[in-house]
Amino acid sequence: MKVFQIQDDWGMEHLQLATRPDPKPGPGQVLLRMKAASLNYRDLLVPNRGYGAHTGTLPLIPLSDGVGEVLEVGAGVTRVKAGERVCPCFTQGWVSGPPQPDRAAHNLGGPIDGTMAELMCLPEGGVVRVPDYLSDEQAATLPCAALTAWSALMVQDHLAPGAKVLVQGTGGVALFALQFAKLAGAHVTVISSSDQKIERAKKLGADAAINYRTTPEWAKATLGITGGRGFEHVLELGGEKTLPQSLLCVATGGTISIIGVLSGGTMTAQLGRVVMKQVRMVGIGVGNRDGFEAMLRAMALHRVAPVVDRVFAFAELKEAMAHLRSGAHFGKVCIRH
Amino acid sequence: MKVFQIQDDWGMEHLQLATRPDPKPGPGQVLLRMKAASLNYRDLLVPNRGYGAHTGTLPLIPLSDGVGEVLEVGAGVTRVKAGERVCPCFTQGWVSGPPQPDRAAHNLGGPIDGTMAELMCLPEGGVVRVPDYLSDEQAATLPCAALTAWSALMVQDHLAPGAKVLVQGTGGVALFALQFAKLAGAHVTVISSSDQKIERAKKLGADAAINYRTTPEWAKATLGITGGRGFEHVLELGGEKTLPQSLLCVATGGTISIIGVLSGGTMTAQLGRVVMKQVRMVGIGVGNRDGFEAMLRAMALHRVAPVVDRVFAFAELKEAMAHLRSGAHFGKVCIRH
Amino acid sequence: MKVFQIQDDWGMEHLQLATRPDPKPGPGQVLLRMKAASLNYRDLLVPNRGYGAHTGTLPLIPLSDGVGEVLEVGAGVTRVKAGERVCPCFTQGWVSGPPQPDRAAHNLGGPIDGTMAELMCLPEGGVVRVPDYLSDEQAATLPCAALTAWSALMVQDHLAPGAKVLVQGTGGVALFALQFAKLAGAHVTVISSSDQKIERAKKLGADAAINYRTTPEWAKATLGITGGRGFEHVLELGGEKTLPQSLLCVATGGTISIIGVLSGGTMTAQLGRVVMKQVRMVGIGVGNRDGFEAMLRAMALHRVAPVVDRVFAFAELKEAMAHLRSGAHFGKVCIRH
Amino acid sequence: MKVFQIQDDWGMEHLQLATRPDPKPGPGQVLLRMKAASLNYRDLLVPNRGYGAHTGTLPLIPLSDGVGEVLEVGAGVTRVKAGERVCPCFTQGWVSGPPQPDRAAHNLGGPIDGTMAELMCLPEGGVVRVPDYLSDEQAATLPCAALTAWSALMVQDHLAPGAKVLVQGTGGVALFALQFAKLAGAHVTVISSSDQKIERAKKLGADAAINYRTTPEWAKATLGITGGRGFEHVLELGGEKTLPQSLLCVATGGTISIIGVLSGGTMTAQLGRVVMKQVRMVGIGVGNRDGFEAMLRAMALHRVAPVVDRVFAFAELKEAMAHLRSGAHFGKVCIRH
Repeated sequence: MKVFQIQDDWGMEHLQLATRPDPKPGPGQVLLRMKAASLNYRDLLVPNRGYGAHTGTLPLIPLSDGVGEVLEVGAGVTRVKAGERVCPCFTQGWVSGPPQPDRAAHNLGGPIDGTMAELMCLPEGGVVRVPDYLSDEQAATLPCAALTAWSALMVQDHLAPGAKVLVQGTGGVALFALQFAKLAGAHVTVISSSDQKIERAKKLGADAAINYRTTPEWAKATLGITGGRGFEHVLELGGEKTLPQSLLCVATGGTISIIGVLSGGTMTAQLGRVVMKQVRMVGIGVGNRDGFEAMLRAMALHRVAPVVDRVFAFAELKEAMAHLRSGAHFGKVCIRH
Repeated sequence: MKVFQIQDDWGMEHLQLATRPDPKPGPGQVLLRMKAASLNYRDLLVPNRGYGAHTGTLPLIPLSDGVGEVLEVGAGVTRVKAGERVCPCFTQGWVSGPPQPDRAAHNLGGPIDGTMAELMCLPEGGVVRVPDYLSDEQAATLPCAALTAWSALMVQDHLAPGAKVLVQGTGGVALFALQFAKLAGAHVTVISSSDQKIERAKKLGADAAINYRTTPEWAKATLGITGGRGFEHVLELGGEKTLPQSLLCVATGGTISIIGVLSGGTMTAQLGRVVMKQVRMVGIGVGNRDGFEAMLRAMALHRVAPVVDRVFAFAELKEAMAHLRSGAHFGKVCIRH
Repeated sequence: MKVFQIQDDWGMEHLQLATRPDPKPGPGQVLLRMKAASLNYRDLLVPNRGYGAHTGTLPLIPLSDGVGEVLEVGAGVTRVKAGERVCPCFTQGWVSGPPQPDRAAHNLGGPIDGTMAELMCLPEGGVVRVPDYLSDEQAATLPCAALTAWSALMVQDHLAPGAKVLVQGTGGVALFALQFAKLAGAHVTVISSSDQKIERAKKLGADAAINYRTTPEWAKATLGITGGRGFEHVLELGGEKTLPQSLLCVATGGTISIIGVLSGGTMTAQLGRVVMKQVRMVGIGVGNRDGFEAMLRAMALHRVAPVVDRVFAFAELKEAMAHLRSGAHFGKVCIRH
Repeated sequence: MKVFQIQDDWGMEHLQLATRPDPKPGPGQVLLRMKAASLNYRDLLVPNRGYGAHTGTLPLIPLSDGVGEVLEVGAGVTRVKAGERVCPCFTQGWVSGPPQPDRAAHNLGGPIDGTMAELMCLPEGGVVRVPDYLSDEQAATLPCAALTAWSALMVQDHLAPGAKVLVQGTGGVALFALQFAKLAGAHVTVISSSDQKIERAKKLGADAAINYRTTPEWAKATLGITGGRGFEHVLELGGEKTLPQSLLCVATGGTISIIGVLSGGTMTAQLGRVVMKQVRMVGIGVGNRDGFEAMLRAMALHRVAPVVDRVFAFAELKEAMAHLRSGAHFGKVCIRH
């Protein structure tokens, strides 16, 4: 089968098209013919060994997100059958419950081989069926980006209708967070560097928006939006540069989901503010399979349409990565297998 | 001031129009000119001393729900000011947090004097401001019926989008539960004895409905609706006759909110089913002031319109009660002061 | 291998010694040489098909609890290795998180073959290692009885130090609940029909006790113990006859764990009390593997010694069952393989 | 009455003995004759306006913790009566439930006058009765330091028996955390700069300890203690210098309570680690009155003795503050009124 893999050594230049033998499903396994994949910011870091030992060993097939059709099932498989369309779970083996040391790092796209392959062989417990209403590209966006947003808002927090939520940017996780928060009856404020993207976010349901390029002290500008209460939930997707402002505009007793490290991996923040406002800061590590299935039930009920920015061909992986790195995207960058 | 009160002895016949001296607000108190009130099933039981010692002593002004305008505030009051429109809280003194033995039974309409009075004098902490978009009659429906539904779904449980909810009937609490569950992105099934009421419930957002008169074994009929999973949340408003069926159609690990006792005050249910399905059954005692204010923020954001069935004049209290008892209503029965 | 099984038809008389072929571990499976088993009240109901369809099909090997030594592991097994001592999990496949419809009824001792066999073959994910300080008989008591008590107090509830807990009786679950509640710093009251058993419960740490034979209205007698607040947590092990009194003495906002059906499988209770006191009644279905492992860490830290009432030989299964049925036991009735 | 107050201007040199008129209890208020007070690190920051606007206006009576006897009650007071011994609540008006913007900053010792006064007049809802077994000095240590530790472990988290907890240092909050975690059946590791203090911590129940002066990379040294799992709960009392190591040794899915800022008010930490380990970091703002009363029930049941390091006379406030600043203390520094 055809794959992309990082081979010989770490580094973007070692990410190459290659051929591997076709896998066969063993007992309890399912073989998927992959239909589409989708990129996350994480995928730009993995080739340069961005997660250290957690990135795994070479050769490594990158990308965490994708969707495939079940070609064949191994002995004893009961959860799925041939012909069904499924997504692989990002964290293999994390079925339910809180994160545990022994099952938090078995992630696709590093250290486990990811979705840039014609075929994937996985334990039956490591895939979930996807609703028919979604296109392949839409379904391919879900395992990492959508589930991260869901886990932040619905599992690690419990958004009630009327809650005020701040979403940073208009990337993959951000737009899913916007869509899911709206499903839950929340009021959503988006910050973005582009008025054009703000217009699109409003069409997706954003109740308020701030251009952080023209309003660099955006936290102050949100006081009117929240009536001075602050946001019950802030999705922290920027990291180093945004966290201090997130602490300014989060509500007393509110939650900041720590997800992204786009603007730098070190946080510097005033501890005093965390204490005075009694803020909860929660690191979000994608999520478990139960959460994935609950999210799909919600999406199917409301026909939530993931925002696909652009679709590249399988061979165009590097172009797709460059597009994601440019920040020009709105929503998810996908690959057609 | 003019009031209705139960005087001389318990019994519906002792519920009469009367006059009391106008109250004056002491330090920390607010004086309200009542604008409207609204009836709950509870109000039919109180005159007959339906809660025993918890019903209080005579004379007693009945009714828990209402809305008024602040006429005057006592010394030191800061939470509200004259001219603002506020609802009294059903459980006076329960501001926040879980129920506590020392603050669970201070309820308006028994043992504390209720809303069938021209004037009410309450501690400033015992009222909440209501949004302008609501009419007086709409606002009068909130303290007991709406907050009970909110507490059941959003405080004692945390409905996530896509959850399946069963609501019994189309009375006050039931319709608020339907409206709030829809705000939260849930899928709602209503059971009712009337096809006409079912039609109205669907207009309010119900996704599915069953006429339990024509389908007495309604629990079985819901299997298709939930795909066999059962309901994540059942609002048990019937009591004695409905609970066994609720246990049949609730999901494994699901929640049954115990609210109503319309069909009888004794529950008889198979304990084995509670254990096998690991059901949570939660007694709902209206709710606290923080919940009330969070509910109002959600309602204001979404302009939720309480369903007012019919409005009676102050002097028509007994006619209003008879109307509620008849079961002909859809939504709340109100009184115009 | 030698087994006990219910064969030919349901009924205690069809529970017999028999021989089955030795199982071999397939991929991902472990083969155990069983060392000991232990009885639960459930095991007295299964031979008479006490759980209907959930009891499974014949022939069926009974008993849920036991411990064995890993004899051999199948291909790909990494969680355990030969020579280690492990307990089978009662609910196979429920690793973590809340109960789910698809993984709540795969229980050992019905519908899945249980521990009355010389050898057991299970998925590696379906067993947990047990601490060395426990004897085989002690370890054999854990999967069902101990985990039920743990789940009730520590997973479905979160006992804080100083909480007041009521435990009914001195059977297996009851004594584990007593021991675990004491670990958590709670105050524990035990009710029992025997002064002698009460003495033994006090030696295990019970802070207060009531003989419900000499004090049939035991709920009233607890008012002094709780200072009138009631119990934050009641372990309801009796069922039909005890629940009404449990509702009398549980605290406002308190929790009743619904576990047992010893005195009858139907509950009849005043719904009004559930509502007025805002009680949570939670059906406890043993628990998941994460809970089992957390419980074992707590037990090992504090060297908690399960109370073994009496040990019978493998061939004496029916005598052991008769002993359990008699109610004369204090703690767990065990079988030595 | 005699008081200490910061007057004329901010700065430690403006903290002086002064006289104020004796207060009289208004309706709903209680008048206390203070018996003892106790110092927190916070009290060293307040005179220099360490909390900005939250520190309040001058003149200001400092210190948050203390105990007094009810001298007189105002009209309508029912919660307490003359002669009873009570502690003022640190956050006045926060009775129950999660923190809220409108009731998180009404703190004694800034912005509200504190406990360095012969008499205090407070709303009846702002005090709690203390158990008889405690001396005045012991009781004076509770409102801030003890409740902070309780809220961190039992309210914002729910320690189960067997959990592993890391406590930093041997100051007031640290020792209460050690004592409370032991009540809850946890395993507690203490880090300290002094072998002598470590010995004392072990006598109080610490299961393990590390001298961070001789073992600067103490986080690595804890791997053996937790078997590589990490700590379920870390009480972060150091702040700037300790947080990076706390993130190294906290368990996947674990909680870090953000309490102290002893080593600096800015946190600099690797966001990636927060995400990978899915850590919850929770700012702890002392706690509410319900928590205070639950803590007192637990303490009274177990006769927990607060550790009083040294008692100074009322006039020796500055000497007491210098002693606290020196770091030589083990437990709480108290003032006898």
